[in-house]
Amino acid sequence: MNKEKGGIVMEDRVLSIKKGLPPGTLVYTGKYREDFEIEVMSYSPEEFREFRTTNVEDVLSLRDSSMTTWINIVGVHRTDVVERIGEHFGIHLLVLEDILNINQRPKIEFFDEYVFLVLKMITYDENSSELTSEQISLILRGNCVLTFQEKRGDVFDPVRERIRHNRGVIRKRGADYLLYALVDALVDNYFVLLEKIDDETEILEEEVLEMSAEDTVQKIYVLKRNLIELRKTIWPLREVLNEISRGESSLIKEETLPYFKDVYDHTIRIADTVETFRDIASGLLDVYLSNMSNRTNEVMKVLTIIATIFMPLTFIAGIYGMNFEYMPELSWKWGYPVVLIVMGVIAFLMVVYFRKKKWL
Amino acid sequence: MNKEKGGIVMEDRVLSIKKGLPPGTLVYTGKYREDFEIEVMSYSPEEFREFRTTNVEDVLSLRDSSMTTWINIVGVHRTDVVERIGEHFGIHLLVLEDILNINQRPKIEFFDEYVFLVLKMITYDENSSELTSEQISLILRGNCVLTFQEKRGDVFDPVRERIRHNRGVIRKRGADYLLYALVDALVDNYFVLLEKIDDETEILEEEVLEMSAEDTVQKIYVLKRNLIELRKTIWPLREVLNEISRGESSLIKEETLPYFKDVYDHTIRIADTVETFRDIASGLLDVYLSNMSNRTNEVMKVLTIIATIFMPLTFIAGIYGMNFEYMPELSWKWGYPVVLIVMGVIAFLMVVYFRKKKWL
Amino acid sequence: MNKEKGGIVMEDRVLSIKKGLPPGTLVYTGKYREDFEIEVMSYSPEEFREFRTTNVEDVLSLRDSSMTTWINIVGVHRTDVVERIGEHFGIHLLVLEDILNINQRPKIEFFDEYVFLVLKMITYDENSSELTSEQISLILRGNCVLTFQEKRGDVFDPVRERIRHNRGVIRKRGADYLLYALVDALVDNYFVLLEKIDDETEILEEEVLEMSAEDTVQKIYVLKRNLIELRKTIWPLREVLNEISRGESSLIKEETLPYFKDVYDHTIRIADTVETFRDIASGLLDVYLSNMSNRTNEVMKVLTIIATIFMPLTFIAGIYGMNFEYMPELSWKWGYPVVLIVMGVIAFLMVVYFRKKKWL
Amino acid sequence: MNKEKGGIVMEDRVLSIKKGLPPGTLVYTGKYREDFEIEVMSYSPEEFREFRTTNVEDVLSLRDSSMTTWINIVGVHRTDVVERIGEHFGIHLLVLEDILNINQRPKIEFFDEYVFLVLKMITYDENSSELTSEQISLILRGNCVLTFQEKRGDVFDPVRERIRHNRGVIRKRGADYLLYALVDALVDNYFVLLEKIDDETEILEEEVLEMSAEDTVQKIYVLKRNLIELRKTIWPLREVLNEISRGESSLIKEETLPYFKDVYDHTIRIADTVETFRDIASGLLDVYLSNMSNRTNEVMKVLTIIATIFMPLTFIAGIYGMNFEYMPELSWKWGYPVVLIVMGVIAFLMVVYFRKKKWL
Amino acid sequence: MNKEKGGIVMEDRVLSIKKGLPPGTLVYTGKYREDFEIEVMSYSPEEFREFRTTNVEDVLSLRDSSMTTWINIVGVHRTDVVERIGEHFGIHLLVLEDILNINQRPKIEFFDEYVFLVLKMITYDENSSELTSEQISLILRGNCVLTFQEKRGDVFDPVRERIRHNRGVIRKRGADYLLYALVDALVDNYFVLLEKIDDETEILEEEVLEMSAEDTVQKIYVLKRNLIELRKTIWPLREVLNEISRGESSLIKEETLPYFKDVYDHTIRIADTVETFRDIASGLLDVYLSNMSNRTNEVMKVLTIIATIFMPLTFIAGIYGMNFEYMPELSWKWGYPVVLIVMGVIAFLMVVYFRKKKWL
Repeated sequence: MNKEKGGIVMEDRVLSIKKGLPPGTLVYTGKYREDFEIEVMSYSPEEFREFRTTNVEDVLSLRDSSMTTWINIVGVHRTDVVERIGEHFGIHLLVLEDILNINQRPKIEFFDEYVFLVLKMITYDENSSELTSEQISLILRGNCVLTFQEKRGDVFDPVRERIRHNRGVIRKRGADYLLYALVDALVDNYFVLLEKIDDETEILEEEVLEMSAEDTVQKIYVLKRNLIELRKTIWPLREVLNEISRGESSLIKEETLPYFKDVYDHTIRIADTVETFRDIASGLLDVYLSNMSNRTNEVMKVLTIIATIFMPLTFIAGIYGMNFEYMPELSWKWGYPVVLIVMGVIAFLMVVYFRKKKWL
Repeated sequence: MNKEKGGIVMEDRVLSIKKGLPPGTLVYTGKYREDFEIEVMSYSPEEFREFRTTNVEDVLSLRDSSMTTWINIVGVHRTDVVERIGEHFGIHLLVLEDILNINQRPKIEFFDEYVFLVLKMITYDENSSELTSEQISLILRGNCVLTFQEKRGDVFDPVRERIRHNRGVIRKRGADYLLYALVDALVDNYFVLLEKIDDETEILEEEVLEMSAEDTVQKIYVLKRNLIELRKTIWPLREVLNEISRGESSLIKEETLPYFKDVYDHTIRIADTVETFRDIASGLLDVYLSNMSNRTNEVMKVLTIIATIFMPLTFIAGIYGMNFEYMPELSWKWGYPVVLIVMGVIAFLMVVYFRKKKWL
Repeated sequence: MNKEKGGIVMEDRVLSIKKGLPPGTLVYTGKYREDFEIEVMSYSPEEFREFRTTNVEDVLSLRDSSMTTWINIVGVHRTDVVERIGEHFGIHLLVLEDILNINQRPKIEFFDEYVFLVLKMITYDENSSELTSEQISLILRGNCVLTFQEKRGDVFDPVRERIRHNRGVIRKRGADYLLYALVDALVDNYFVLLEKIDDETEILEEEVLEMSAEDTVQKIYVLKRNLIELRKTIWPLREVLNEISRGESSLIKEETLPYFKDVYDHTIRIADTVETFRDIASGLLDVYLSNMSNRTNEVMKVLTIIATIFMPLTFIAGIYGMNFEYMPELSWKWGYPVVLIVMGVIAFLMVVYFRKKKWL
Repeated sequence: MNKEKGGIVMEDRVLSIKKGLPPGTLVYTGKYREDFEIEVMSYSPEEFREFRTTNVEDVLSLRDSSMTTWINIVGVHRTDVVERIGEHFGIHLLVLEDILNINQRPKIEFFDEYVFLVLKMITYDENSSELTSEQISLILRGNCVLTFQEKRGDVFDPVRERIRHNRGVIRKRGADYLLYALVDALVDNYFVLLEKIDDETEILEEEVLEMSAEDTVQKIYVLKRNLIELRKTIWPLREVLNEISRGESSLIKEETLPYFKDVYDHTIRIADTVETFRDIASGLLDVYLSNMSNRTNEVMKVLTIIATIFMPLTFIAGIYGMNFEYMPELSWKWGYPVVLIVMGVIAFLMVVYFRKKKWL
Repeated sequence: MNKEKGGIVMEDRVLSIKKGLPPGTLVYTGKYREDFEIEVMSYSPEEFREFRTTNVEDVLSLRDSSMTTWINIVGVHRTDVVERIGEHFGIHLLVLEDILNINQRPKIEFFDEYVFLVLKMITYDENSSELTSEQISLILRGNCVLTFQEKRGDVFDPVRERIRHNRGVIRKRGADYLLYALVDALVDNYFVLLEKIDDETEILEEEVLEMSAEDTVQKIYVLKRNLIELRKTIWPLREVLNEISRGESSLIKEETLPYFKDVYDHTIRIADTVETFRDIASGLLDVYLSNMSNRTNEVMKVLTIIATIFMPLTFIAGIYGMNFEYMPELSWKWGYPVVLIVMGVIAFLMVVYFRKKKWL
């Protein structure tokens, strides 16, 4: 159970390890420490450059490039790299701390020179029905978008493809549109999660209707917990996009705002759907409990029918099994068949009674 | 179960297929690809014209007609047609995308030149107790109202009749009144749904009170899920009508506002009624569970009464069935009748006891 | 069950029959079509006139009377009368439609010339524990108050008496005070309902505590449904009175506002009480279920005690009822009494055990 | 049950008796009609006077006294006294009506000349676990504070003592501070209630954990109902104090505001605690139901163990009790002991099985 | 149970003891009366002084020190000390009263000269699963931060270390940063609590899934109650930090605001997590009840299977145990084996039936 719980407080646990350090101390609080790489994509409508490096100095000069540049730092455990970039790009120390402390709620902060976003990339492990979340930080500054990931593997490949092959308008627009494209990719990822949860809900529905599995209640519980976790992320995400689409920062151009508004609409729909699933999960539990209650009732009926038919019969047999010396019936010629008939009649009446009660 | 689930996430599923495409790409995300037709109605207080075509060029010239014109595009899977119309009428690319992407929540967007509405037409399949929803997009621009449907079949026939036969004031008013008439027809459609849900609720009430059906809980569950879905649509619809009736757009004339206000009142009532039905469905489940609990109690009582009467009697019979050589009662002359009388007294006392406990 | 459900959607059902008609068509959507009469009361501090008529022309001249005039139209099914009055008094067509369409939520609309209120008069049928609602529309215009009822019988008699016998200040004040007096009478009527619901709740409390009735759960369900319906009416009513007591219309004099504020306070209390009753009804259901659960437990205990005592005893009796040839105990002289004593000891130990378990 | 219900609607019941009377009619709607007395305390930092009278004329001259004066009218059933005082002090007729009509929610009304507060003094009857509420009206006007009680006995004694013995700053401050002191005393009274409810909750917790009482669910129900009632009073009380501490009236001096803010903080805490108790009461019910469910399970296990062990054994004994002529086992020498051993083995295996299932 | 309840109303209990005293009377309402000490830390970027004293006069001169000074008063039961300090530092009497009255909700009050905060330090007793709370009051005034604790032992040691060893920026910033550091330490403490609750939840999850413990429901109840208590503290705490980080007081420098904003973010996360745990605790209870219901069903099945198989068999054995003289089967040669075979067939059919019903 330990691992499944992970998503809820584990992150906080790490924070408390950090407790006592002075604020502004750059400490990575996550658990991924293998990958490190800087991926760079530079483009203008005509040109396109792409390279990977592990030397932070290679990318610093891009700050003042006239081309739109996306610098993706994979592996924030390299606090030295984050610090160097932060220094060069003029990022506030508390922002750098937030990038490294993976316990942030999704949030947005506007500064004069740049915009800072923290988002969550949630992935679903189909074996354990478990959600894991990775923190993605994004900074829009001038022509640059900086993104910070904890480990390799993300949901940005479609964006990369669009840049590489100059699909859509992405190469024609600036860095704010790039920021939109990345946020959009992250938000679209939630729909994938919802589909998986939808599939699982459908399976659970069948299990509940047919009462076919032993651990249905446990599965509903895990489903509910996943939805609670998802909800914890989706509501602040919605706020973030609401704030950005209100267009209060000059760093986001007027013409890009409708796109952010569009993503905002998506987050509303995601939030709606999560609530819907929660209602459905509760409904499923009710159906399960009712069905279980029905079943117990069925079992009881079988027992009662059997006992009610055979107890009186056994009693009658018991009477004529007594060894009294003076029991006239025992010596009657038709005693035995009469008793058998009486027993048959009693059994028949019982069955009639149960039919009338609709137990049979 | 698969089909019933349809309404909740299926639409999202399609969206995620679209994931990765650059925004602004016109892709129809629905499943209806058979029907295609453009229906046109042009009218002024005196004149009236109506025709159908499958050639989009036939309708483009109507943009600047002095008559009020309703252009109904059936079959948005023909993205080329939507694009051509969008281009000609000066509709924003993101709006066209929303028309084709059938996963929108009901919403309204005001532009300088036109108003864009996305609404949902929900139909109820009485066999499967299933709701299906079709997206209807409406654009009011100058003298024209453009409507976009996924497939043939809608709820606008009464409006068509009123235009054709010049009933009411519709021919005397402009395009904004036409927009109102169409929205009103869509909202009225929800009352039909509510009635069907009402009928179903009544049937369920009877089933619950008489505990007559096996699958009552399942039906309550389906009812609840339908209400959850309905609610997901009705609340944004309410917002849409609130926004439009506030009269912030010059495209809606002052004199038409009271009509929109009227439809807004309807949506409030629909939302109220949906909430009421949810409360009632929960209440029904409570009654069902209580009745089931009552029934189990009844079954238990029958069992207990039978067991409590016959176990002691059978035990007594068992005693005198023992084969001890020295059992004086066995040779008593009145032993047998005395035992029978004792048994009768015990049974009688038991019955009295159960009567006192009100189990009988 | 059909009739009881009436209050919830029945009204909507009628609306959907109206679906397709152009807005502004005057159609009465209710079911009362017997009564028709116009009651008129005209008064000034000195004078008082009262008459009844079925001829609408008799009352039209009163529009410009200098006396305060109350025109009560009973029977809105006479759409011709409503239309004639509406025309003469300059009432908007949509308002007339609302008067005839009895599916309105309580609402208030301010116009330049007049104020329009829709309220609900709810009555409680003590036999069926059913609520029925009648729509009362009120229009304040100049010196006149127009009221529209569906059928004869209302809660305004105390107001009539005060006018007739010049009790209180009613004759000294104008038409806005008359409006207040009528609204106040309608709101007071809710307290009567609440009392009846209170009585019913008390009876239900006793039934639940003593578990004396079979259909307690059904009654709680009906109570809850009535409260849901009541709540659906009371919340918009509260809004109506809040709006009117804010004094934004010049048609309501400053000095009459405290009176409306007073009625507003009443509606708050009514709404509070309805919520309180809902909580209590839920609490009662919990108690009922707990008691039922207790009872099942009691029944189980009786069964278990009986079975646990007699099964071992019957088994022992069964052993000595076996017909083995070589069973030494059978020929012991004290075999029979010893077995009886052993049985007694076992029974005694069982009773002690159950006492310890507090089952006895 | 009748008496316990009292607090919820009884007051409304009286209101409906008043229904039909013109507004502004002074009618006392409560039930206490024995006590009548006017208590007067006049003080300045140096002086102090105190007297009791039943003649209203004795106190009228105090209106213009330069000393701070508290006039406490005990027994509002004397409507003539209330009217006389109202007239002399220039109190609005509707305010006087509110004083006499004990069905008010706690509220505050600011007038030019005076402030009017309605509060509730709730007392807890420890025998019946019942809450009763008395309406206390307070008017601050110039140097005077008028208080109106329904009957003798209140929570103001500590305030009286502080005035008499010149403790604290009360004699140094004006009438607004006196108002504060009285409101504070009334609010503090709620803490006494909460403590009693706390004690009761503790007892209930023990009862639930040990399942020691028969009527635990009923007690939880009464607790919940008391909390619902308390909540109904505490929320408007909180609003009252919020409004007064905002300092919008010139009748409350700037320097007294922090004191009212302090009482406001108390009401927030009271409201918080009431909500907490409601959550706890719900939790207790859950625990009770779970424990009851556990118990039924326990009872079932005992029954099943006994039946499962003895039914097969009794069956075996029954077989060898059959009277077939040709049953070889019966004549075996070791038949009887072998059967006994077989029975022992079966019983042993059953016990092992139940141990494995952890039923034993 | 008494001690566990402590956190909920005990504090209020003490308040009511205070009832009747004039406001502004300095009375300590807590229970810790042993410890008393004043700890002082003075520092500038270069210098650092630290000393402890029990003589309040030693610290008064520090009010006007140019160094940043933290005066920590341990043991507010020494009301004379609090009064002396309050007098010297110009703290309002009501503030001093709040410091001594440990029943405050977390709150912040801005004065011209100083800021006053009341916070709660909650500790978790792992043996009793009990929360206890201590009130910490903080005053920021000029270069000084005054803190008031009820007893020795706090969560400020990391801050002390940072000051002593000049770690981070704390010695470079002023008193407002010190205030931040202290508040931050108090808020971080909640994460420790959440972890412990997380551990407990995990253990409970396992207990629920394996139904391994007897008192699981009780533990869930205690968990829920702890969460209710925690929530009662965390919501006002969140408000406090929201207010302070809005930067409306000139006592908090602009550059320190981001730090308070950061702590505010933490409190949001804590509040979110508490809500999440409440949802999880409710989910656990549902799973527990379902599992219990499953188990009862299992027990019932075992009983029913045994009874259904053996009752008919025992009945048959009973028939042939009857002593009728004329029972032809008894003298049949194959009577006995035939009966045994019949019994075997019946038992076999029963088993087949139960298999089909999936009870076996």
